[in-house]
Amino acid sequence: MGGSLARALTTLAGGPRVLGWSPAADEREAALGAGAVSEAPARWEDAVAGAELVVLAMPLRATCAMLAEVARATPEETTLSDVASLKAPLARAAERAGIAARWVGAHPMAGSERSGFAASRADLFRDARVWTAVHESAEPRLGGVHALWHAIGARPARIGWDEHDRLMSVASHLPQLAANALAAVLADAGVTPDQLGPGGRDMTRLAASNPLIWRDLLSEARPELVEGLRALGAGAERVADLLEAGELEAVRDLMVKTRAWRRS
Amino acid sequence: MGGSLARALTTLAGGPRVLGWSPAADEREAALGAGAVSEAPARWEDAVAGAELVVLAMPLRATCAMLAEVARATPEETTLSDVASLKAPLARAAERAGIAARWVGAHPMAGSERSGFAASRADLFRDARVWTAVHESAEPRLGGVHALWHAIGARPARIGWDEHDRLMSVASHLPQLAANALAAVLADAGVTPDQLGPGGRDMTRLAASNPLIWRDLLSEARPELVEGLRALGAGAERVADLLEAGELEAVRDLMVKTRAWRRS
Repeated sequence: MGGSLARALTTLAGGPRVLGWSPAADEREAALGAGAVSEAPARWEDAVAGAELVVLAMPLRATCAMLAEVARATPEETTLSDVASLKAPLARAAERAGIAARWVGAHPMAGSERSGFAASRADLFRDARVWTAVHESAEPRLGGVHALWHAIGARPARIGWDEHDRLMSVASHLPQLAANALAAVLADAGVTPDQLGPGGRDMTRLAASNPLIWRDLLSEARPELVEGLRALGAGAERVADLLEAGELEAVRDLMVKTRAWRRS
Repeated sequence: MGGSLARALTTLAGGPRVLGWSPAADEREAALGAGAVSEAPARWEDAVAGAELVVLAMPLRATCAMLAEVARATPEETTLSDVASLKAPLARAAERAGIAARWVGAHPMAGSERSGFAASRADLFRDARVWTAVHESAEPRLGGVHALWHAIGARPARIGWDEHDRLMSVASHLPQLAANALAAVLADAGVTPDQLGPGGRDMTRLAASNPLIWRDLLSEARPELVEGLRALGAGAERVADLLEAGELEAVRDLMVKTRAWRRS
């Protein structure tokens, strides 16, 4: 995510100077070698010094911890942002660190099951919804961050962090875990990925997502996710019941309903 | 599927003459207008007359019924094929109609949630696995059908129809119904498709599949599909239990396991 943002900003005509940092030396070298960043210092302190905007792109817990650290290492003028998939934990972290007025959180609904610089793409954010969340005191900084996302083709929109996290629990985290649950069934049944068609491949693509990133996100799982998983479990059982009972019209009705929803 | 096959064969240098038929006049006109077929007679009898090979691309029950009809309308030399996603019902239909020696069934693992000529693509079968199934008496015709699929870039391979249908129950039909079950949960939770990211979109794409095609396939549902749905239901419930209990390492273990499987 950080690599893609760096690439997008660097390819922008008249865009900002972009510095990058990663704890992994090979990631820093890859970003430098690809021209995604103009500098990639070994110490993060050297990357954030003098920055107008610092965007943290790391797993959720590391993001929360680094937010406070970067805030201490930079002046009041430096705006702090992140791209974590949950926003309430960051809003709380910003408040705890006393930097509510400097934090403009962002969540780009883009990316894939892959992570690291090798998976980065300059056009990753094109047409992507980017949810932003701020405390009232940071509202003056919102326009600048929105302008940056607009400039690289994304569609920023402000949302409350609780509303955002409730939505993501169902719209993003539930599909992720559904992919894991489905993949586990296929694996147990002895199906191999090369035996899948396009549909089966799409339905299990997320099963290759990074467990470290997700472990963090799921540690902040909301009740809506648990409810969604139980509803999915009950739904799968119900379809099994219908098939066993030969009630094909009821299965067809379900498909008609979900087709209309998906096309809406 | 039929439209894509026609397009692929027509664009082939030195390819066969391709005639098409659909019960819908606008589909026939669309195929003719796109140059996918050289003729599209209004009566199917005129489309199959003199054909070396007839490929039926229609819902499962219609395919089984038409197989016998087309067999009666054509001479022994005409090979009969189909692209249905289950092969045992076709193998039985061919036997019942006394044309076991003329039937070479095929199942291209390609396509999308869309159907009809408007969804057709000349490159749909490139690199796609195409499972073929024949009675022993039709083996002499297998090579010709394989050559045709090879010519348009597909990867044909023979399989027993029961083995094929067992595999598809889990590798194809289960992901389809998982998409429907997930989409129903998202719809009930008030999520709209435009609120989905790339992952959520992939996980619900199949929810827009054609209910008519699937109703037929599911009428031949195998016990493996019902078992798979129940395993998926139990798996989703188990993840919900783990999240509620805060057992994040167990969720991470599941993700590590499915990641390794998906990358294998």
